[in-house]
Amino acid sequence: MKSSLDGFAESPAVQLRARPGMIELGFGQPDPALLPSRAIKIAADGLLGGAQAADALSYGYERGPRDLVDAIADRIAETERRPSSSELLVTGGNSQALDELLTHLASPGDSILVEAPTYNFALAIMRSHCLRPVGVPNDEEGMQIERLEEAFGKLCKENRAPSLLYVIPTFHNPTGASLSRSRRHELVSFASARGLTIIEDDAYRELSYRDPAPESLWSIDPDRVVRLGTVSKSLAPGLRVGWMTANERLTRTLELAGLRQSGGGVNHFAAMVVAKVIRSGLYAATVDQLRAEYKARRNALVAGLAATLDGTSYQVPLGGYFVWLELPSTVDASMLLSQAEAEGVSFVPGRSFFPSPTGNTNYLRLAFTYYEPTMLKDGAERLVRIIRNLHPTRRTS
Amino acid sequence: MKSSLDGFAESPAVQLRARPGMIELGFGQPDPALLPSRAIKIAADGLLGGAQAADALSYGYERGPRDLVDAIADRIAETERRPSSSELLVTGGNSQALDELLTHLASPGDSILVEAPTYNFALAIMRSHCLRPVGVPNDEEGMQIERLEEAFGKLCKENRAPSLLYVIPTFHNPTGASLSRSRRHELVSFASARGLTIIEDDAYRELSYRDPAPESLWSIDPDRVVRLGTVSKSLAPGLRVGWMTANERLTRTLELAGLRQSGGGVNHFAAMVVAKVIRSGLYAATVDQLRAEYKARRNALVAGLAATLDGTSYQVPLGGYFVWLELPSTVDASMLLSQAEAEGVSFVPGRSFFPSPTGNTNYLRLAFTYYEPTMLKDGAERLVRIIRNLHPTRRTS
Repeated sequence: MKSSLDGFAESPAVQLRARPGMIELGFGQPDPALLPSRAIKIAADGLLGGAQAADALSYGYERGPRDLVDAIADRIAETERRPSSSELLVTGGNSQALDELLTHLASPGDSILVEAPTYNFALAIMRSHCLRPVGVPNDEEGMQIERLEEAFGKLCKENRAPSLLYVIPTFHNPTGASLSRSRRHELVSFASARGLTIIEDDAYRELSYRDPAPESLWSIDPDRVVRLGTVSKSLAPGLRVGWMTANERLTRTLELAGLRQSGGGVNHFAAMVVAKVIRSGLYAATVDQLRAEYKARRNALVAGLAATLDGTSYQVPLGGYFVWLELPSTVDASMLLSQAEAEGVSFVPGRSFFPSPTGNTNYLRLAFTYYEPTMLKDGAERLVRIIRNLHPTRRTS
Repeated sequence: MKSSLDGFAESPAVQLRARPGMIELGFGQPDPALLPSRAIKIAADGLLGGAQAADALSYGYERGPRDLVDAIADRIAETERRPSSSELLVTGGNSQALDELLTHLASPGDSILVEAPTYNFALAIMRSHCLRPVGVPNDEEGMQIERLEEAFGKLCKENRAPSLLYVIPTFHNPTGASLSRSRRHELVSFASARGLTIIEDDAYRELSYRDPAPESLWSIDPDRVVRLGTVSKSLAPGLRVGWMTANERLTRTLELAGLRQSGGGVNHFAAMVVAKVIRSGLYAATVDQLRAEYKARRNALVAGLAATLDGTSYQVPLGGYFVWLELPSTVDASMLLSQAEAEGVSFVPGRSFFPSPTGNTNYLRLAFTYYEPTMLKDGAERLVRIIRNLHPTRRTS
């Protein structure tokens, strides 16, 4: 993705800026025009102009400000069991939370079970901790439990038994799929029987476009599962505020560890702002608006893809940000990317989402959140034209 | 410190709250009344109401927003060589920065050289990374270079040669001392000859009360030294914004690692707010005000201590937050604490600042930033009375 920024970096403030003339279907980011800056301004104003100003600027409570803990617990309680305050910890978003967890739960050289494909930058965070991600194939119902059993058994035989499993069961990045209900229970049972801790990356839960989001793994086994939530997708990623629900032993360990004892709560000021936004009702309103808007955008992208070729397949996601496109096995998505960018449309080749660097060249990830529907449809149609014109696809059935 | 909060935790927002009737000389935190909430409100208003609102709420540039990088470089250039933008990286404060560095520069079991005493929670962060801090004694001119050579030699003989050295050379926490000019150069030369990377915790640089702060180790060897700066002491700790100056290879490694590629710049929104505060001129004004105020507070604390006993010694700090009191060797500061708290004054016993848990029971740390001068003088005088009334001190010369 980095290449997208080069040449536009004279005075960078943000991670990604769309290139002129390019429809950036690779951007897994919210549309800047949809960021609720007014709601956040009202919250920040109220906070800094009111009785809590000094609290917002002091070293924060290590678990996160209680106002935010309570507000998040209330939000969770609308659809799941309400976590107690000892089961909740405010984080600096899911990336920070994953990093903090790996510092405390893993050692260099450890294997960690992941889906194949999985979120590419979660793999990068694991690699920063010198872990070895081991992939378990997904299908349209998420991680395949039989393949999980195989992978676990193989690691045990090699004396590399893992203690962690990282999974994105709901509106997956990059596939858009959700783990089926039966597999959710099978996965948790398996983890329980084998002593695995599950890290459930639950970044997309709020963005469901048809049914309520599936039950979280955490709600099935709150002792075994560490679930990571965030306002990055449902409010604004620049705030860098998230939370975890986990058992009290773990939240207490993190609370009392050096990082939080030294600096206080992670990202305290922004956490205080988010508490205000949720309490004002503007968070729920923002989520409702994003659901409606992103659903329309998903539909537009899918409409643009509808005319795609035989041999190319994708699943219409029921939530989240992404459509995952499987191309005929003869197509190399990296090579396709050059052609596509030459014609003004971009995407992320799928290979980086696999823990093993070989094979899997025939996938690509498209995001439908960054642009308005007409642009998305246009981008998808351009892409379909390019794929159609490719020689190798003619050979697929 | 945690015990200070127990009983006041019904709806905690902040890390520490003073107990009624207690003068908390243990609180190494700014006075809530001195936090510049107006300056920060103006900045946040301008940011969220202006053209940069969407940038402030999007995923941030991995190195930190360029506006802040430039503003910090300009501030540094007032007293030192201006770092290039490739030598600067925005962090989430020095605790986050140390944690991030240790993930990338250390492995479990590694030894890391530190001062004895040193910042207690830096030790805790090292322990979260399963490192072994090895202490090198400080005196009133900072780390003793001969003792550093001894410690390094001993580790090499034991096949535990360290690659990292963590030091607080300017207005030290907890001692208040600064490394002398000659030792600064000796330390950097030694590190260079032995291939050590120096992590320079420079949290207190802005708070100098007499002379300009000493030259940073980073300014002596910008390739060898990673210097950690922060606005926690000079603006507001709840913002959780800091920065590092380091060589381009390191800043690039951190920029491209998973944490920042995934979440974008650490603590982006607050970083954008801080850029505005600095550019408005309100940062420099705040620092000037804090210097004057804290100098008066230091003087008040020292005035209260002046009548202390023979056998008790301390150094008047020229900057920072702390006075470090050495009691007669027969006094146990932990036992003294109970008596002191019973009489309405608290402090931090010195033992937790030493990497080795044995001995060093006769030190305590006093902070002079949290209260107004009259309270500080009162607290110090109470403490002196208690020490005087202790039996063991009579035996000291």
